[in-house]
Amino acid sequence: MSAYQNMSREELLQLQETLNAQYQDWKAKGLKLDMSRGKPAADQLDLALPMTSVFRQVSDFKCESGIDCRNYGALTGIPEARRLMADMIGTTPEHVIVYGNSSLNVMYDTVCRSMVRGVMGNTPWGRLDKVKFLCPVPGYDRHFAITEFFGIEMIPVPMTENGPDMDMVEDLVSHDSAVKGIWCVPKYSNPQGYTYSSETVKRFANLRPAAADFRIYWDNAYAIHDLYEEGGDKLEDILAACEEAGNPDMVFEFCSTSKVTFPGSGIAALAASAANIEDITAQLAIQTIGHDKMNQLRHVKFFGDIDGMKAHMQRHAEKIRPKFEAVWEVLERELGGLGIGSWTKPRGGYFISFDSMEGCAKKIIAKAKEAGVTMTGAGATFPYHKDPQDRNIRIAPTYPTQEELAMAAELFVLCVKLVSVEKLLQD
Amino acid sequence: MSAYQNMSREELLQLQETLNAQYQDWKAKGLKLDMSRGKPAADQLDLALPMTSVFRQVSDFKCESGIDCRNYGALTGIPEARRLMADMIGTTPEHVIVYGNSSLNVMYDTVCRSMVRGVMGNTPWGRLDKVKFLCPVPGYDRHFAITEFFGIEMIPVPMTENGPDMDMVEDLVSHDSAVKGIWCVPKYSNPQGYTYSSETVKRFANLRPAAADFRIYWDNAYAIHDLYEEGGDKLEDILAACEEAGNPDMVFEFCSTSKVTFPGSGIAALAASAANIEDITAQLAIQTIGHDKMNQLRHVKFFGDIDGMKAHMQRHAEKIRPKFEAVWEVLERELGGLGIGSWTKPRGGYFISFDSMEGCAKKIIAKAKEAGVTMTGAGATFPYHKDPQDRNIRIAPTYPTQEELAMAAELFVLCVKLVSVEKLLQD
Repeated sequence: MSAYQNMSREELLQLQETLNAQYQDWKAKGLKLDMSRGKPAADQLDLALPMTSVFRQVSDFKCESGIDCRNYGALTGIPEARRLMADMIGTTPEHVIVYGNSSLNVMYDTVCRSMVRGVMGNTPWGRLDKVKFLCPVPGYDRHFAITEFFGIEMIPVPMTENGPDMDMVEDLVSHDSAVKGIWCVPKYSNPQGYTYSSETVKRFANLRPAAADFRIYWDNAYAIHDLYEEGGDKLEDILAACEEAGNPDMVFEFCSTSKVTFPGSGIAALAASAANIEDITAQLAIQTIGHDKMNQLRHVKFFGDIDGMKAHMQRHAEKIRPKFEAVWEVLERELGGLGIGSWTKPRGGYFISFDSMEGCAKKIIAKAKEAGVTMTGAGATFPYHKDPQDRNIRIAPTYPTQEELAMAAELFVLCVKLVSVEKLLQD
Repeated sequence: MSAYQNMSREELLQLQETLNAQYQDWKAKGLKLDMSRGKPAADQLDLALPMTSVFRQVSDFKCESGIDCRNYGALTGIPEARRLMADMIGTTPEHVIVYGNSSLNVMYDTVCRSMVRGVMGNTPWGRLDKVKFLCPVPGYDRHFAITEFFGIEMIPVPMTENGPDMDMVEDLVSHDSAVKGIWCVPKYSNPQGYTYSSETVKRFANLRPAAADFRIYWDNAYAIHDLYEEGGDKLEDILAACEEAGNPDMVFEFCSTSKVTFPGSGIAALAASAANIEDITAQLAIQTIGHDKMNQLRHVKFFGDIDGMKAHMQRHAEKIRPKFEAVWEVLERELGGLGIGSWTKPRGGYFISFDSMEGCAKKIIAKAKEAGVTMTGAGATFPYHKDPQDRNIRIAPTYPTQEELAMAAELFVLCVKLVSVEKLLQD
């Protein structure tokens, strides 16, 4: 099929009629499908079921340091859980605090602590006139929601296949002391699935920030979430890189097992330099008596070690890879060569990023919704929900069944075609 | 034995010699005992062991609203857990948000939210020159640590057997708009074990605060923690009382199962009016995707309902009642009639409050420590660790074994005697 841009007005009008008829047929089906959030499907959750019965006798509750994990204590996490989470993101246990069930909560808490108490002795942000964060776009909506909640000004920075535009990052970070942070999903970025290159990580580690309390918020959410057993993307260890560059304190790294074991019932971790860990622990001692150590131990008993965890992730991959491939097949078959959309083909993570023609994303999402398929809201991948070109759509293929997904994808491409034709007719 | 105050200087000197010899004998034993924190003993934790294996099949994970508790969702908690926690504190489920593992964390979070975002549309406290909290004393050290962390000025209010000095509370709350809160442990108060009377609860509910965002921080930590099956203290429902008094929004109530199932692996809850719940949920939606619903469901499956939970608490009581009684026996036998100390005899909770002669608490605790028995730090039960009379000592009898406890109590009374004699000799 030829590109839509090369079609005559008459051809477009005829095409519109055909597409509209197809769309009415789809609407009649009364679908109710959800491709909006990065949620594991039920059969993925089944994989971790044995984790709910790992405790058999009282002696099972002692952790390596001899503590009874059923009681209070171990503020920064039990040793074996710190090791497991360190291995997950390629660092060492002394850098790691193991938290409760949600890395998003740890990120919120980290920004909140900076607001009320400040970072390592610096002025609390709440007392400053202006605090800014850099936001690679498109990016993760829940990151942007946190900074928006705290009244932090968000500056969009364009993403490339190798990570954020580092010229822009370097320029802003080194010249503006109000810039206190940057949100990053460095491996299988949300929504594109891009992984920051070695060069990008190196440039990050060598930033020379104007603000002493500037931190890289390194949300390594998909550290071991490869779709293919061979050839998953490789991400450099940012903590080691920062240390080598003489910037050991410049990064907060986050991760969790939400998409490894159970969303909402996993364990989360923060990794940082010794000085940061000390600063954070001082607050943590006020905030809580400790996190859920039984759940930490449950994870360790279930996986054994990082090899067990990686083997487990391959079982996830077997279930979700066909879903990604099903979406790509439909996109390629139906939109290939039409010049009305482009999409990413990541080797891991939870999303596919789709870019429509300019000014079409909102309408496509509305059309899909009207026919019963929920996508992530238009603009969600940008700060303040404002996609300046109205192009980006995040596709989350994991939650629906294979069959539902095939239908949702077919409807989606139809909506893309319809809205694109409308646009071309208006131009 | 006659009161120490009636003894001659010679008698006191002779007594001091005897006591000193006894103390040296105790020191030689090389004890290492801990009566410092309100920690359940291992045999109490064993009671909840079956809770770790309640899940048997995939269908076990559906909650009443049909949600798969293994996945994301249910921000305010699953319905059956909201009901269980509501029953625990005598309110109704729509007032309740179920959180993660720690009510202390919920309290920290509640104060923190007030600092950065404000309470129901009021100015965030972080932007005010001065914020004050009333602190009934002696009280709970971790409460005071939270307000101190946020730079909130703490005003001590004396406790009576019926609760805080309400004349003083009413006066301060109604005349000073900087007073934004009061820390309360209304049932089996920490450390005295006092329960607020109906009259006190009524006066709380009828406060007329100068500040629209004044809240009572009602830490109902020991709601069902009775030592005796019959005749546990009764506490009025503060939420209902506030509603009746036309002050529905004036209270935040907190509770958890930390001392019901597992400290660190329990579930916590906040209860408040509909308007407060709405205000809090708006922030919660930014802060997390949800708490650990599997653990919520685990609790409900284990207990069934509030009756199961209360029956469980009686099994706790059977284990810790003898420990409280052992301490009282030693205190009565060794200190009764001497006029050098008084103590509380609560019918529930986790502590006994001991008051020495003025200026003796620090020295008693140091002496006990020197002989291997750790007590809660002197001054801990007062804001800024400052006990103006240096009298109060918190005794936590639950964690040691019965045998250890007997030894620790004997040593403790010896230290009280020794320090009291020293003081009388100096006067």
